[in-house]
Formats: sequence, structure tokens, C-alpha cells
Amino acid sequence: MDVDFDRTLRAYADLTVRIGLNLQPRQRLLIIGPIANGGVSLEAAPLVRHIAAAAYDAGARLVETLWGDEEVLAVRFKRAPRDSFDEFSTWLPKALIEHVEGGHAVLSIYANDPDQLKDESPEQVAAVQQATARGVRPFRELISRNQTNWGVIAAAASSWAARVFPGVEPPRQVSRLWETIGLLCRLDRPDPIAAWETHLGELAARTDHLNRKQYSALRYKGPGTDLTIGLPAGHLWVGGLSVTATGIRFAPNLPTEEVFTMPHKDRVDGLVRSSKPLSYGGTMIEGFSLRFAGGCVVEVRADRGEAVLRRLVEMDPGASRLGELALVPHSSPIAQSGLLFYNTLFDENAASHVALGAAYKFTLRGGEAMSEEEFECAGGNVSAAHVDFMIGSAELEVNGVLPDGTIEPVMRRGEWITTATSA
Amino acid sequence: MDVDFDRTLRAYADLTVRIGLNLQPRQRLLIIGPIANGGVSLEAAPLVRHIAAAAYDAGARLVETLWGDEEVLAVRFKRAPRDSFDEFSTWLPKALIEHVEGGHAVLSIYANDPDQLKDESPEQVAAVQQATARGVRPFRELISRNQTNWGVIAAAASSWAARVFPGVEPPRQVSRLWETIGLLCRLDRPDPIAAWETHLGELAARTDHLNRKQYSALRYKGPGTDLTIGLPAGHLWVGGLSVTATGIRFAPNLPTEEVFTMPHKDRVDGLVRSSKPLSYGGTMIEGFSLRFAGGCVVEVRADRGEAVLRRLVEMDPGASRLGELALVPHSSPIAQSGLLFYNTLFDENAASHVALGAAYKFTLRGGEAMSEEEFECAGGNVSAAHVDFMIGSAELEVNGVLPDGTIEPVMRRGEWITTATSA
Repeated sequence: MDVDFDRTLRAYADLTVRIGLNLQPRQRLLIIGPIANGGVSLEAAPLVRHIAAAAYDAGARLVETLWGDEEVLAVRFKRAPRDSFDEFSTWLPKALIEHVEGGHAVLSIYANDPDQLKDESPEQVAAVQQATARGVRPFRELISRNQTNWGVIAAAASSWAARVFPGVEPPRQVSRLWETIGLLCRLDRPDPIAAWETHLGELAARTDHLNRKQYSALRYKGPGTDLTIGLPAGHLWVGGLSVTATGIRFAPNLPTEEVFTMPHKDRVDGLVRSSKPLSYGGTMIEGFSLRFAGGCVVEVRADRGEAVLRRLVEMDPGASRLGELALVPHSSPIAQSGLLFYNTLFDENAASHVALGAAYKFTLRGGEAMSEEEFECAGGNVSAAHVDFMIGSAELEVNGVLPDGTIEPVMRRGEWITTATSA
Repeated sequence: MDVDFDRTLRAYADLTVRIGLNLQPRQRLLIIGPIANGGVSLEAAPLVRHIAAAAYDAGARLVETLWGDEEVLAVRFKRAPRDSFDEFSTWLPKALIEHVEGGHAVLSIYANDPDQLKDESPEQVAAVQQATARGVRPFRELISRNQTNWGVIAAAASSWAARVFPGVEPPRQVSRLWETIGLLCRLDRPDPIAAWETHLGELAARTDHLNRKQYSALRYKGPGTDLTIGLPAGHLWVGGLSVTATGIRFAPNLPTEEVFTMPHKDRVDGLVRSSKPLSYGGTMIEGFSLRFAGGCVVEVRADRGEAVLRRLVEMDPGASRLGELALVPHSSPIAQSGLLFYNTLFDENAASHVALGAAYKFTLRGGEAMSEEEFECAGGNVSAAHVDFMIGSAELEVNGVLPDGTIEPVMRRGEWITTATSA
């Protein structure tokens, strides 16, 4: 068990450094985590050490880690002055920017309790979220332009594992979650790196197919969902691999099963219902619907967490519009695991989804060279927020509208209609 | 046991925030640790959480922590490119400066293995030490001027505890070290804060006495030691409490038993032998002697770690001169514990000592307003280094030379000759 565990960590670390970040000799690596927590969970230390080893083996000049402790955040919510929750680090945003502008790589590791702040006041949770989002907005802007190679991975930790496996006895929960991460990241394969090269090739074939189509809109139908999302001219489908401004090919999410692009921020109309709960700012938002008109959210309903969801939508003008849509077949290994991870990295790869908030400039042809104004004019959404939520299921139907108005099926019962290779 | 442990942590946290830092409402607190490691050991998390709680109770607006993991540092020594050891964080020095210049408090917690790097090459250890010292020099300069309230405390951690209690079975080592820290920090008293107020008052009486004397030099005699240290005009003895530029009274070291001042950098002559091993840059230096002439080290000998000691002395011109001398009676509780902590915070309070490297400007009348050149002219030593080593023992004799040349005894058999209150 211990040997297997160590082998899983080493394989995930190698995959992250070689395929995920494709770390280049002489780069530095900064390892971070949820910014509102200050960084990566202390419980992720065994994985962090393996990643440092893999990074140095790849020729990294320096590996630095920003750690965070969710218990220190819990202490803040219990004891800090009531009017202090909009305070945010002054040095942290500058540290992130300086690192990225130096041409160095960034890795974010998520291991946190998705529901940590459920009993805190929505006002204070929103204040922390907004201060964090504003603070890291310039960093997120650089990342969204793929200014450097970056990545997001996960590490099993006790509070998160307890949430995913409530029926498993506590001492076994973390190892169960590690086994699951290993499986979904193909770390059980004889050669995980070769397996990922194949899988990333298949995602590339899918995005090539969709990019040739250049649909003017997608129409979604499912339980509680009847939504049309306009796609701007020049939208780019992306999946698996990305490329930095300096030409480094990297896979920012491990695991990844999705292909995604950007909507036209003013051409979203209709009703969409979440198909999974959303963990946002340490609170679970469940059973929620959003109605859009002319791109903008005009109605918010949720069975649980509605106040937090409203605050998200009202954070800034862009937070009430969509910035991303992603298609994931219901047969994806993560969907097939039947598990709910309460963690976007996994759950977004189990189901088709959309995101409220900022669009990625790299999902528009020429977007990375555009000013904010030019990007908005072309249909790109600008916001301090970027929050994914799941809308896919075995019952989702997606149709594509071609530029000439022809409608053709894209997904039925949550699965691709044509394989990319048959197109 | 668990209850006692938690009570010890809470008492240390309260003492640190209220007496140590004297944290002011609306200040932020940044918790750090050994900078070469990136910050405070992950094992110190239970203490860090209590400190965060005490800080918020005192009205702190935000508590931030820079964590470090000595195992990540170990990975660096094993795997990083051989020519990369002079690389240092670019953002960390700026973060420290920005925090201090914002008027906020800094706490450093030491919990590390004092001998972690003993098997690494002295060249690489020296490269890391020098890069760190250069990187944090502007921060250390602000701290040495008491620009803000700062502190250094300790936390028990496994590798350090194993070193202090090699004869105790491993599962008990950390709790034994915590019990000892509790005792030496007077946390077992019914009211630790009142006990510290009394003790700090006694140290203040001692420094008042020595400041009235204004000795022109001290003469040390002991086994292997025959040393004269000149004291500059206007030297200030300091002990226990310090005062920030903005008037906050704080006790930077907990525990503290020493009174200290600065030598004249050009008036140190003779031979001095260490009375305890020195942990420097993760290496133990043992059984060493330094010969001084005209203030400068002219001879270095050590039974173990001589190469690392030579590199320290050669780091920059000031590293071969003294910047601090401190007197501690052999009856101090830490000396009486009979333990060797391999940690300066404790060992420097068990024995009289001196420091190679930078002098503190606050140990010279008007020093804080001086430029570097003015400070050097007045006898103050300037360096990127500041490394204490122990010379006190039950056999140490110290005489004071008054400005008129009269010689009077200051310490005999390691104890004060006159109590401050009898002077």
C-alpha cells in the first residue's frame, strides 16, 4: 500500500512536470493552491516533494511553494474583526506576476475541503472571494493569455476525501481518493506518459473537427435546460494541449477530458439548470438555474446557496455573463466513475459545462493580442470571476447551427454524434 | 496530555502576540521561518493556528504565513542542477520589505533540524546561505533598526526534537521538547504574562546598570579564551524589551535571558573558543576557535565543520568581525536545563556569546539614524551575516575596563558579580 501510494505520487509528479507543465530547463517552478487559503494544503506535502524532485530532474533552477492551511482560514472566519474580510495580501499578487513575467512555470494543486465555509456568513465569504478575485485578476489575465506554462492538478486530503467518500471509514478515505485520482489520471497504465500522449492526440482531433465547423451557435436541451449560446466569429475550440506565447506546448489540466471555447457574451438566451452541485468560495450551491437574456443573467434560483450565487453573479458586470462553454461526453472515465468530486478539475471533466465570468483570450483567433476593449467588441467576456458549473448529463442534447443556418446534431444522450476521426 | 499540549500552545501563542510582538489593533501579521527553507515548518501548524487566533483576538486585520518544508530543501540538494544553488527567490525579499514598510508585524518560528545539511557539500551549503543572506539583507536591515515589531520563537518538530533528545524514544521526543519549551518560556506559571513582565523588568534593571558604567572594553578569560572586546562610545546594552521606530514596546525573543550590546568592530584582540557547537546553514560546527587581531579574524580552527566556518568568515568583509556581544549568567534556566538545543534562540540564552557579522544599529546611541558609513565610523560592523556562537560557561570570567582604565569584575564563574539592583 505504501509502495503503491508512493508510486502513484511519483507517476503523477512525473506526468505533471513532463506532460502537464512540459517544464523547460532553467525555468523556475512556483507551486500554489487556492489563493484564498494562501496556497497548497499542507497535506499535499508528499506530492509537492515528488513534484520538486521531478522539476529539478527536468532542469528547474528553483522550486518554490506557497502553502496555505485551511485551518488558519477557519480561524480567520471565527476570530478576525468583522469588517476585515475585504483585506487581501499586498505582496502575493506581485509575487505571482513577477514569477510569470520572468518566464517561469506555475502549478496550482487543489486538495481542499469544497464545503469548508458552508456555515460562515455569505457576506464574509463573498468579501473574501471578491478581494481574492480582484487581487489575482492581473495574474489570471496573464494565465488566460498562456503567458507561461501553467497547470492545475489535485491532491487527496482528508476533508475533501471525507466529502467524496462519506460511506468509507475515515482512515481509508484519503487512500481511496488517491486510488481514484490515480485511475482517472491513467497512472495505473504501464506507461502513463504514452497513454496521455494518445489521449491528448484524440482531443486534438476533436478540436480540429469543431474548428473546421465554425458553428455560429450551439443549442442545449436537457432536464430544466433550453439554452442557445452564440459563438463569435473566430472562436477556437481548445482541448488537452495549449501553447504558451513562447511556443511551449503544455496540458494545463490533469486530468482533462473536455474541449472548450468561448461564447459570444451578448448572445446567450434561455434557461440552464445545473446538473451537479457547485463548490464556490467554500460553500456548496445546489440545484440551481440561471435564465439568460441577451447574454446576461436575468433570474437566479437555487435550492441551496442562492445568496452566495447571487453575490457571485453581482460581483462585477462580467460575472453575470458566460465566458466559457465546454463539451464532455458522458462516457468520460470521470463521469463513469459515478463519483461527485465537488472539485471543478474532476467534475468539469465528467460533464459538459459553462463558466460565468472571464473568457480566455486564447479561445478567440488573435484574442491574445487584443486589448480588453477589442476583446469585448469581438464578444469576449471580461470579469474578475471565472466559475465553471456543470450542465451535462446522459440526457443532454446539443445541436450546432452552421453559419448558413443549417442545424446538425453534435451530442445525443450526452455522447458525441460523430467521432472526430470519422469527420 | 493532549489537553496540556494544547494549553501550552495557547499560552505560548498568547505570550507571543501580547508580550512578544505586542501586536497592535489593525496591524497585519506575517509568520515566517528559516528563509533558506521558504518559511515556517509545516509541523508548526498547530502553533501557527493558535497564533493566528491570538492575533485576530488582538485586532489583527490579516494573518499571513510563509511556510517552508525542509524535505523540499533536501530534494533540492539531492536533485537540483549543481550550478543552481545561488538562485534565490525574487519575490520573497520584496514581500518581506513591503510588509514591514506597511507598518505590519513579523514573527519568525524556528522548528528545524539544526543538522539537516551536514552531508551536503560545503560549497553548495555556502552558496544557498550566501544567496539567502544577500536576498534578505534589506529586510534584516529594517528589522535591525526595529522598523516594526518583530519576534522569534520556536516550535517543537520531529527532526529537531530527535537531535535534542537522542535518548528518548522517538514518539515521545516532540512532546518532551514541547514540555521543555513550555518550562523555559515560563508557560507553566499560573500567569505566564505576569511572570514575563517581572522577568523583563529585571533585565531592564541590568541593562540600566551596564549603560551607566559605559565600559570601554570587556576582557574575557576561560578555557581556550583570552579575549579583549572594545566597546564604542555610546554603546547601548539592550535586553528583553525593544521599542520600534513608532514607539511599540516588544520583546523580540521568547525566551530571552541575555543582555547585549555591540563591540567596536576594530578593537577585538585575542583568542576565543566556542563553548557549544554552532548550527549554521544546516551544518554543525564543533570545537572551534577564532583568533582576532585589530577586530578581524586571523585564524580559524574547528574539530568539525571548519570548511563551512571558513566560508562564513569569508562571506564578506564584515563576516570576519564581531557585531554583538551578550552576557548570560550560567544560572539562567536554559543553562540549568543542561540541554543543548542546537538552536540559537535557546542556546544563546544558556551562555554568554558573541556574533560574527552585522551589528544592530539600535545598540548604539543614535545608530538608527546613521548611514552605513557613519555607523561603521562609529565602530559598528556591517555585513550580510549575523551568526551567534557561545563562549560562556561556568568557568568564564569577565572584567570591565572603565573609561579611566580601572578594571572591575563583571562576571565570575559565569555569574554576575553584582546584581543590577545592588549597583
